[in-house]
Amino acid sequence: MAQEAGSADGPSEVDVLIVGAGPAGLMMANWMSRCGIRTRIVDKRGTKIYNGQADGLQCRTLEIFDSFDFGHRAWIESNHMLEICLWNPDAKTGIIHRSDRIPDTIPNISRFQQVVLHQGRIERFFLDSISENSKRTLKDVPGWEDGIKVEHGVLPTSLEFDETLAENTDAYPITVKLRHLSEEEATPKQSATSLNGSGLQDGLFRSNLSSDDTQELLDKTKLLQAKAGREETVKAKYMLGADGAHSWVRNQLGFKLQGESTDYIWGVLDIVPITDFPDIRMRCAIHSESSGSVMVIPRENKLVRLYIQLTTTENAGGGQKADRSKINPESILASAQRILRPYKITYRYCDWWTAYQIGQRVGDSFSLKERIFLAGDAVHTHSPKAGQGMNVSMQDAFNLGWKVASVVNGTSNRSILKTYQSERRRIAQDLIDFDHRFSRLFSGRPAKDVLDEEGISMDEFKRAFEKGNLFASGVAVDYGASIVVAKSGDSTKQGDGTEVLGAEKLRVISNQGLAAEIKVGMRMPSFKVLNQADARPWHFQELLKSNGTWRVVVFAGNIKIPDQMAKINRLGEKLSSSASFLTRFTPPNKRYDSVFELLSVHSAPRQEVTIFDFPPVFHPWDDNDGWDYWKIFVDDVSYHEGYGDAYNNYGVNKEKGCAVILRPDQYVSWVGEVDDYESMEKFFSGFMVEQPGGRDRVGVNGWEGMSREINSIALPATDEAVVGTAAA
Amino acid sequence: MAQEAGSADGPSEVDVLIVGAGPAGLMMANWMSRCGIRTRIVDKRGTKIYNGQADGLQCRTLEIFDSFDFGHRAWIESNHMLEICLWNPDAKTGIIHRSDRIPDTIPNISRFQQVVLHQGRIERFFLDSISENSKRTLKDVPGWEDGIKVEHGVLPTSLEFDETLAENTDAYPITVKLRHLSEEEATPKQSATSLNGSGLQDGLFRSNLSSDDTQELLDKTKLLQAKAGREETVKAKYMLGADGAHSWVRNQLGFKLQGESTDYIWGVLDIVPITDFPDIRMRCAIHSESSGSVMVIPRENKLVRLYIQLTTTENAGGGQKADRSKINPESILASAQRILRPYKITYRYCDWWTAYQIGQRVGDSFSLKERIFLAGDAVHTHSPKAGQGMNVSMQDAFNLGWKVASVVNGTSNRSILKTYQSERRRIAQDLIDFDHRFSRLFSGRPAKDVLDEEGISMDEFKRAFEKGNLFASGVAVDYGASIVVAKSGDSTKQGDGTEVLGAEKLRVISNQGLAAEIKVGMRMPSFKVLNQADARPWHFQELLKSNGTWRVVVFAGNIKIPDQMAKINRLGEKLSSSASFLTRFTPPNKRYDSVFELLSVHSAPRQEVTIFDFPPVFHPWDDNDGWDYWKIFVDDVSYHEGYGDAYNNYGVNKEKGCAVILRPDQYVSWVGEVDDYESMEKFFSGFMVEQPGGRDRVGVNGWEGMSREINSIALPATDEAVVGTAAA
Repeated sequence: MAQEAGSADGPSEVDVLIVGAGPAGLMMANWMSRCGIRTRIVDKRGTKIYNGQADGLQCRTLEIFDSFDFGHRAWIESNHMLEICLWNPDAKTGIIHRSDRIPDTIPNISRFQQVVLHQGRIERFFLDSISENSKRTLKDVPGWEDGIKVEHGVLPTSLEFDETLAENTDAYPITVKLRHLSEEEATPKQSATSLNGSGLQDGLFRSNLSSDDTQELLDKTKLLQAKAGREETVKAKYMLGADGAHSWVRNQLGFKLQGESTDYIWGVLDIVPITDFPDIRMRCAIHSESSGSVMVIPRENKLVRLYIQLTTTENAGGGQKADRSKINPESILASAQRILRPYKITYRYCDWWTAYQIGQRVGDSFSLKERIFLAGDAVHTHSPKAGQGMNVSMQDAFNLGWKVASVVNGTSNRSILKTYQSERRRIAQDLIDFDHRFSRLFSGRPAKDVLDEEGISMDEFKRAFEKGNLFASGVAVDYGASIVVAKSGDSTKQGDGTEVLGAEKLRVISNQGLAAEIKVGMRMPSFKVLNQADARPWHFQELLKSNGTWRVVVFAGNIKIPDQMAKINRLGEKLSSSASFLTRFTPPNKRYDSVFELLSVHSAPRQEVTIFDFPPVFHPWDDNDGWDYWKIFVDDVSYHEGYGDAYNNYGVNKEKGCAVILRPDQYVSWVGEVDDYESMEKFFSGFMVEQPGGRDRVGVNGWEGMSREINSIALPATDEAVVGTAAA
Repeated sequence: MAQEAGSADGPSEVDVLIVGAGPAGLMMANWMSRCGIRTRIVDKRGTKIYNGQADGLQCRTLEIFDSFDFGHRAWIESNHMLEICLWNPDAKTGIIHRSDRIPDTIPNISRFQQVVLHQGRIERFFLDSISENSKRTLKDVPGWEDGIKVEHGVLPTSLEFDETLAENTDAYPITVKLRHLSEEEATPKQSATSLNGSGLQDGLFRSNLSSDDTQELLDKTKLLQAKAGREETVKAKYMLGADGAHSWVRNQLGFKLQGESTDYIWGVLDIVPITDFPDIRMRCAIHSESSGSVMVIPRENKLVRLYIQLTTTENAGGGQKADRSKINPESILASAQRILRPYKITYRYCDWWTAYQIGQRVGDSFSLKERIFLAGDAVHTHSPKAGQGMNVSMQDAFNLGWKVASVVNGTSNRSILKTYQSERRRIAQDLIDFDHRFSRLFSGRPAKDVLDEEGISMDEFKRAFEKGNLFASGVAVDYGASIVVAKSGDSTKQGDGTEVLGAEKLRVISNQGLAAEIKVGMRMPSFKVLNQADARPWHFQELLKSNGTWRVVVFAGNIKIPDQMAKINRLGEKLSSSASFLTRFTPPNKRYDSVFELLSVHSAPRQEVTIFDFPPVFHPWDDNDGWDYWKIFVDDVSYHEGYGDAYNNYGVNKEKGCAVILRPDQYVSWVGEVDDYESMEKFFSGFMVEQPGGRDRVGVNGWEGMSREINSIALPATDEAVVGTAAA
C-alpha cells in the first residue's frame, strides 16, 4: 500500500476512503482499524511534521484517547493546565494585576483534566494505534494483511457519486481519482523567517489569513505530470472529507460554510519565555487597559504559547484582509510587551508563530446521502483560543466511525447514519455560538466602570469563562432523541433539524429517574468499581474500550435479596435464549461479546458473592479460556484507591438497580428497569440486523459447556504419590 | 558494537563491564545509560526470549521503574494483585474453605501495589531505556555514539585483576577475555515437552534442579572455535557479575554461596485455568489437609501461575536431587487437583512449567576490592514464591549503579563503594531468613488443632504472611549508618559487618525528630505536593528521577513568617556563595542541577506566594530558558487529586520546616534544621570531590543574569500601532 509520496497504488476497492490525515481523518481511520474495516486514508501534504499546531486536549478527548489505549501517552507527555489566572487593569492605576483564579477544568467532571500537547505527538499516537490494530483486525483479509497506512502526498482529483446505489448496502457508489505527488510537491512553502540568525517555522500557510493551496498543488502536478503525477481510481462504499477549512470534498459536493468573520486579528508565538511575569506557567487571560489582550497557554518542553491581540478595534464592515507584511515575530512580541506592562517578556527561542483572523462558520450539510461525510474544519471554523478545534474535529469522527463500521460490518442498518449530522451539526452550531460570544468578550476593551457600556465587564468575562469551561471540556455534549438515543421529545428540535427517529412502534423511552446521573444522550460518567473476581479497582469508563461493541450494563442491585436475585435470574434466562437479541444479532462465527458486551455492577457485599452467583450469561464460558472473569463488578471500597460509591454517584437505587444501554462511543442510549428485557429487545430491533445462523448459535452462555468440561476432570486418588519424596 | 552473537568486537576499554543481562545486569546498565558511563553488557545466552520467568513486581520496584520513566509501562501491562485469600481445611470436614482475606499490598505504604508481569516485558522496558538514554548521554563520546547495547552470545573466558591498581581512580585493573558464540551455541536446550499435541516450553534448564551449563557452552565453543568462537580482550575500571546462581564471575573470584537446601520440591504451571474454584483470579495460599499446598498467582493475559507442592515430607539430611523423570505437567497438575479438591481444575493451554527445590544461600563477599562486584542470584538464592528474586536482584544493582557512576564521573571518591556490600549483603541475609521461615510455614501440614505440634498453625501462617508482606514490598529496607547515611549507631552492626563510616570528624548525625516519617536510611515516602508556578500536583517521588543527582530538599515552612523567610534567605546566600558545596562540587561545565538538585516545599498559602519570593538559587536562572519553574513546590490542596497533606504526613513542622538530603536512589541521607547549612556542607565533604574550576563558576544562582537580561528589554511606546487595524 502506498505510504510514501509516489509509491505503488493501494487497493482499488475499499469500504471507506478518508481524505485528510489531520485529527478528524486519523480518528476515523483509527475507528476503522479497531473494527476491521478496509480503509484508505490519503493526505495531500507530505510526511514532514511542522511545529506549532498545538492545541488543548479537553478532558473528554482524553477519555476518548483512553478508550483507544493511548490516553496515558498524551497524559504523560503533555503539559497539564490546572488553573486560570485572570489579569485585569486596576480600577485606579490601570496597571494589570491578578484579579482572580479559577480551576482550568471544573473539578469532578472527568477523571482527566485539560492538557496541551504538540499535534505531531497526537498524530504519532494515532499512527501507532492505526497500524497496530489494523494489522490485527485485517490480518485475514486478502490484500490487507499489512493493515491501514496513511498515504501522504496523495490528492483526489475527481469524485463521482452514483446516487442510484446509495441505499444498496453492498454497493460502491463512490468513485475517486487519486493523484500521487512527489515529496517536493507535497511540501507547502513556509515563510523563511529568520530570527536571531536561525530559521523559524511559521504557520501562516495554514492560517485563514492565507488562501487555499489545493489548486496551486493541482496546477503544479499537472505541469510535472510526466515526472510524478501518477493517477489511480478507487471505488468506495463510504467516504469522509476531513480535508480542512478549504475542503476539496466539500467543494465537490457543493456544500457551503455559513457564517461571518470579524476583523480582530491575533498573533501567536510559541516561545521559551524570559520574563518576570509570575503566572507565565498558568493559563492566563490578560486584559490590558487599552492595548488589547493576551492569552497565555503553558506548553510542554518549557514552551509557552501566547495568543496576542494585534488589532483593538472591530470593523463591522468586515472581510478585508489585514496587512500581512507588518505581521512578524518582532511585531507580535512588541504587542505582547505592551499588553503585559509593567512585566517584561522576551525570548531567545521561538518555536513557531502565526496570525489569524477570527471568524465563525458552520457547514450547511454534513453528508451526501449518508455515503459521503464531512468532518472537522471542513464543516466548522472558529478561533483557536478556546482550544476546541482539534477536539471537536476528532469528536466528529469519533461519533461517525462506529456508525459507519457497524453498517459496513452488517450489524446495523443504514438508518443510524443520519444521526451523525443530527448530532454533530448541532454541536458545531453550539460551538460557533460559544466562540462568537467568547471571542467578543476576549477581544473587547475592559470596562472602566459600570457606566462604561462599550467596555467589557470583567465580572461578565469571568462568568463566561467559567460557563465556557464546561462547554469546552466536551463532557456537556447531550445528543438528542433518535433511533440510538431513547429519550422523549422532538428529535428535530434536539438536533440540527434532521429527522432521526425510527419507526414509532419501536420507539423506546428511558426511565431517566432510575439513574439520575446516567443521563440519556450524554457520555457515561466514570466512577470506580471493583472486579468481583480479583478485587481490582477500575474506573468504569476504562471498561468501555472503543472496539465497536454495544454495552448492556446491568446494575444488578443487591443480589443477596432473594427477589432481586430472582429478577436477575429471569433476565439471564431471557438474555440467553436462542431468540434473545444477544443471540439473534451476533454473527455465529463471532465471539460472544463482539456485538454486545454484558457488564454488571452489583451492590451486595463483595466478600459474600462470587461470579458463580450470577447466571452464566453474565460471565460467559469459552472452551479454551474457561469462565470470563472480567464482566462482573461490584460497588465496594478498594484497598488503595478509595471508594467510587458508584451507585450513589450514578443515582441508582442500591437494592433494585437498573439497566443501561451504552453506545459504542460511551454515550447513553437507554436507562430502564433492571429486568426490562422487552425494552432492550425493542430498542435494538430498531436498527440492528438479524444475523443468518444467529439463532442457532449454541452456548452463548455456556453452562452446558461448563458442566461438560468440569465434569470430565477426573480427580486423582487422595494419596497417590506423584513424585517420590526426596528421601524415597 | 556487538549486538548479535558473532558480530564485531566492541570497545576494548570500558568504564564498566557487566556480565549477565538478566534483571540485575540490565538495571546496572540502565543506571550507566542515565549517567553517561561507557559500559558493555554481555550475556552468554542468545537473544531468544523464553516464556515463564514471571515474577511479582514489588511496589518498591515499581517506584524504581517510575524513577526511570517506565513504571507506567509495567503498571499498564501487568496483572494487579489486590487481595490474598487464605484457604485451609475445615476443622471438622477437612475440606478446604476460604478462611481469610488480606490485602496483597499493605494500604498506604506506596503509591504502587504489587503486580505480576512476564520477565520478557520487563527486559524490553530496560532495553528501550538503556538504548534511548545512552544515545543521549554518550552521543559526544568517541566510539560510543550508538550508546550501550546488550551483547548476547558473548561469554567471558578469563579474568585478571591487578590489585596494585585497585585504588588508582583512573586505572583499568580488570582484564577480561570475551568469546563470541554463534546463536545456535548460545541457545540452551529445552525439554521438548509435548502437551495436547503442541510443543511446550519448560524452565527446568534454569531451575536449580539442573546443573550449570557454562562449562558445556565453553567446551562446545572450543570445538567450534574455528567456526565462530572469536575472542577479544576488554579492559575495565569496574565490573559486575550479574550472571546468576551459577555465577562464573563469583567462581573466578573464589567467593562462595553459604546456606542450605531443603528437600521440599515444588512444581510450577503457567496455565489458562478451566476451573470452578472461585478465587482463581486472587492470590491464594491454599493448605490442603494432607496433600500439600498451592499458591495461586494470577497473571496477565488470562494466565494463572500455580506453585504446587510435590513433596510433603522434609528430609533433614537434605541434598539429594529428586527423581526428575516423574516431574511433568501432568503429574504437577494431578498434585494441584488433589490439593484443590473438591474444586476441579484443568487447562487446555499451558504456557510454561518448571520445578525447583527450596534452598537459601547467601554470598560470603559481594565485591573484590570494590572493583569487581556481584549482584542478584550470584549472591543470594531462595525460593521464588515470595516474589522476591527479581526484585531484590534489581535492587542490588539499583543500589550499586549510582555509586559506581559517581566515582567514575569523578564527583565522589571511592569510599562510598564499600556501602554496597554493607547495605545489600545485609538485605540478602534478611531475605533468606524471611524465605526460610516463610517456606517452612508454607510447605508444612496444617495443624489439626492446638495440640498438633508438628502441624503449622494457620493463625501463625496468617500473621507471618501479613508481616512478610511488609518485607516483601521492598519499602521496609532500612540501610545502616555509613558515610552516606547520617544516623547514629554502630555501622557494622547495622550492616553486614563491613566498616563504612568515614572520618569521625566529618560524621554527621541527623535530627530525626524534625521529620518523623522521613526516616534516615529508608526510601523517601511519597505524598502529593503542588508546583508553585503552575499548581500541578506531583507525587513527591515523581520529582526524584534516577539521573545520578543528589537532592537537597528544603521544607521551607511558612515563608510568610518574617523570621522563617529570613532563615531561607540566609540559607540561599550560603548556598549561592562561591565556597558552597553546590559550587565546589559541581563541574563548571555542567548544568546547575547536575550534581545537586535543590528542591523546596513550602507551607505558606500558595496563592499568596510566587517563586520570586524565594532567593534565586531556589529557582535558578538559565540564559536561554529564563527562570526554572520546576524546583519550588507547596503543600496545598489540589483541584482534582485531593490533598497530599505532605507536612503532616512527613511529620514536619508547618512553620519551621526542615532540610533533607536524599541520595540519588531516593534513600534518605540526612534530616536537619532548615538552615543547617553547616551539616550539609560537612556531610558532602565526607565523600565528594572538589571540582577544578568549580569555585569560579559564575551565576549558579543567576540573579545577576536575570537583572541583566530583564533590564535589557525595551518596552514599546504605549500607543504605537504594530499592525494596522483591518479598517486602516
